[in-house]
Amino acid sequence: MMEDFSIEALRRVVGERGVITDEADLAPFCTDWRGMFKGRARCAVLPRCTAEVAAVVRLCAAAGVPIVPHGGNTGLSGGATPDASGEQVILSLSRMSAIRSLDVIGETMEVEAGCILQVAQEAAADAGLLLPITLAAEGSARIGGILSTNAGGTNVLRYGMARGRVLGLEVVTADGTIVSGLRQLRKDNAGYDWKQLFIGTEGTLGIVTAAVLQLAPKSRHRVTALLAVPSADDALAVLRLARQAIGETLNAFELMAGPALELVARHVGLTTPLAPAPWYVLLEASSSLPSLRDAVEEMLADVLERGAASDGVIAESEKQERELWHLRESITEAEARAGRSIKHDVSVPIALIPAFLRVADEAVMKAFPQARINAFGHAGDGNIHYNVIIPPDADSQVLNRLVHDLVVAHGGSISAEHGIGQYRVDELHRCRSAPELELARRIKLALDPAGLMNPGKVLPQTIVTR
Amino acid sequence: MMEDFSIEALRRVVGERGVITDEADLAPFCTDWRGMFKGRARCAVLPRCTAEVAAVVRLCAAAGVPIVPHGGNTGLSGGATPDASGEQVILSLSRMSAIRSLDVIGETMEVEAGCILQVAQEAAADAGLLLPITLAAEGSARIGGILSTNAGGTNVLRYGMARGRVLGLEVVTADGTIVSGLRQLRKDNAGYDWKQLFIGTEGTLGIVTAAVLQLAPKSRHRVTALLAVPSADDALAVLRLARQAIGETLNAFELMAGPALELVARHVGLTTPLAPAPWYVLLEASSSLPSLRDAVEEMLADVLERGAASDGVIAESEKQERELWHLRESITEAEARAGRSIKHDVSVPIALIPAFLRVADEAVMKAFPQARINAFGHAGDGNIHYNVIIPPDADSQVLNRLVHDLVVAHGGSISAEHGIGQYRVDELHRCRSAPELELARRIKLALDPAGLMNPGKVLPQTIVTR
Repeated sequence: MMEDFSIEALRRVVGERGVITDEADLAPFCTDWRGMFKGRARCAVLPRCTAEVAAVVRLCAAAGVPIVPHGGNTGLSGGATPDASGEQVILSLSRMSAIRSLDVIGETMEVEAGCILQVAQEAAADAGLLLPITLAAEGSARIGGILSTNAGGTNVLRYGMARGRVLGLEVVTADGTIVSGLRQLRKDNAGYDWKQLFIGTEGTLGIVTAAVLQLAPKSRHRVTALLAVPSADDALAVLRLARQAIGETLNAFELMAGPALELVARHVGLTTPLAPAPWYVLLEASSSLPSLRDAVEEMLADVLERGAASDGVIAESEKQERELWHLRESITEAEARAGRSIKHDVSVPIALIPAFLRVADEAVMKAFPQARINAFGHAGDGNIHYNVIIPPDADSQVLNRLVHDLVVAHGGSISAEHGIGQYRVDELHRCRSAPELELARRIKLALDPAGLMNPGKVLPQTIVTR
Repeated sequence: MMEDFSIEALRRVVGERGVITDEADLAPFCTDWRGMFKGRARCAVLPRCTAEVAAVVRLCAAAGVPIVPHGGNTGLSGGATPDASGEQVILSLSRMSAIRSLDVIGETMEVEAGCILQVAQEAAADAGLLLPITLAAEGSARIGGILSTNAGGTNVLRYGMARGRVLGLEVVTADGTIVSGLRQLRKDNAGYDWKQLFIGTEGTLGIVTAAVLQLAPKSRHRVTALLAVPSADDALAVLRLARQAIGETLNAFELMAGPALELVARHVGLTTPLAPAPWYVLLEASSSLPSLRDAVEEMLADVLERGAASDGVIAESEKQERELWHLRESITEAEARAGRSIKHDVSVPIALIPAFLRVADEAVMKAFPQARINAFGHAGDGNIHYNVIIPPDADSQVLNRLVHDLVVAHGGSISAEHGIGQYRVDELHRCRSAPELELARRIKLALDPAGLMNPGKVLPQTIVTR
């Protein structure tokens, strides 16, 4: 039942300025920020409120026009980039960016999908609270994208993934119905928790328009330390000692291979305050209790005495804290300057990190003798960014397959935090069984029977065709 | 397509002792522990492994026989009790109780659905870790039931609901397929997170057979305190000050009305170490850091100075800690001895607890002048057990409606942690909108089109009939 679909009809809903058709203006919506994916779109639509989102979805549904939801365009898997057909409509919620309310006593915040993560973080901080979702793209990423991709970041170890922050959700479903569940409740076992379906499904089941997020108390004391460790096994020994000694205070436990920081030194010009080492650990802890610093110092002394670390430094000022984090955060930039790199955002059971790294390094270097491996990541969560710098003519598909097969062999995931998008969609079947894909298929067909919500993303088209 | 369904066929799958048909032996499966719900069943089946669960489900599916999953039978909403037809098969996973593995480095545990919560807690503790799901029924409740109901308890404030503990899940779907996702990963954004559908849906979409649970570090220092507070508003002031002063260390923040502890004194013979007060707060904090005790003492001094509490005591020994908790935990028993009580397991936004209590007290006492209100609960989570002791001839339906209407008016939930089961199924539509119920209907029909998984629970039959 294809009805007449016109740009004019969209303009009547969202206003003149709410529809972008000019090719130059559309271009930023049609390419991901890394420039890996390029598509074409019919137009971009920017509604101003949830009712307008619903009206736009209904117009598209009636005409059989697919919708690609678009957040801050900071994704790494092409989930927000349209296909090449020029038939798809981009739905940007950037004009819906209000922080609707903030409840200090309940430690919650209601925020629209278009709100930039950092703006929401700052509003929480102004109220003496913490929105504990922290990631490199926080200055551009929007809440809708954060939730639709179940974003991770550097403090998952302590606070969990974005999913765990969501108390309430408002969505527009594939048929243009507004479903509102903007409850501020930490405990709510009344019926199916349908909001879970719209978190982490990358807009393939509906559009997230607003959410109630659970905030956390702010910690007054923070300690950041950098350690040099002889091996990945030693890094895990440090992790275990840290969990025993300062347990709940550990925000981040980042592992960086020596070559990763060599890249940073060479291409970004930042050097570590420690002597060169095979591996480094950056850890951050925070607490409301003042004895945190003493406990961290005691723990580090223990770690050094046991030989699990060969050297270490604790930041003595906020400036030094930033410098230590800057090392970690510069790895991606250094890697980009070093040549052509293929990224693998993988996770394995934490205990298997050293074994995975050993086996993967050996296999990669055997298959690609000219490769340089750039491994780093959130070891406290089992999440390794196992990136490989390879010559321009090397076959990245072969490399992907090799790495991902080893990940699966170690009980891991081929997407720890970046999602599937269009980048990994053809690889999903390699880490998900047929019964798991069948469940996904049934859910997709139940909620988006016409297949108009971000088609081609997350689920292979083959499994969603009836 | 009704095939021949026979007890013999079931026995061939699960062995002679795996099928219970004797009426006396069946009786405990057909009544909930409070004796509120009674049903009849064809038989109870006790498989020994996941493959047997799948075979049983396939036999039932082929014959169109409904299945009622049964855990430790500690539920408060009749979710595990069959209907009166005598047609349903009870599926108990009590013979699948193994702790399959425990990973100290990854802080995870793989456990079968029939494992008793306390057994799992103890296994974690033996490994120096914490399984942070704590509730009154932990000595009988089984993991399958805990996850199927998304259980809450007394440390949700710090550790969240049961859902947040689940890293991996193994289920048997309505058609008897085993879907295995027993991954040990904290971060896994590869495709739809289908396991969320089986958590908290009370067996209406499939059978949970095993899970990988995320454990937590054990805290070495713990402080428990009881405070007398003049009003519920003051209790919230204490909560805010505690969140600011000792933030992440707060495990529990329990509110008890004065009359609740009067009931405990009269019917259980336990008295508080404090002078009689309108309200009491029981709080527990724990940390790996030794300065916890000092911080709590400082916070309590501040609270007393501001007048938010009139009196307070800190437990000086484990024995005293147990005594303080024993007061809280005896409320249910005291209530049972006091007469006929109607329970309401409700939640509201934390900031609205005082307003809700005021309005509800007034409305209940006006409608039921002989009622005695017994309000207590997990105030730090917004969860109040708003129980009312009423004469035998009072109309409990009128009372339920009155309380629940006020809950909904305050943006709350009519089931914070007890689930819907059969007890609240007819009330669900009062706190869930038509679009929300439509989403639930679609999910149910997609995953259990024949309607054989725990029919009559959670979702009203009217909405799941095509």
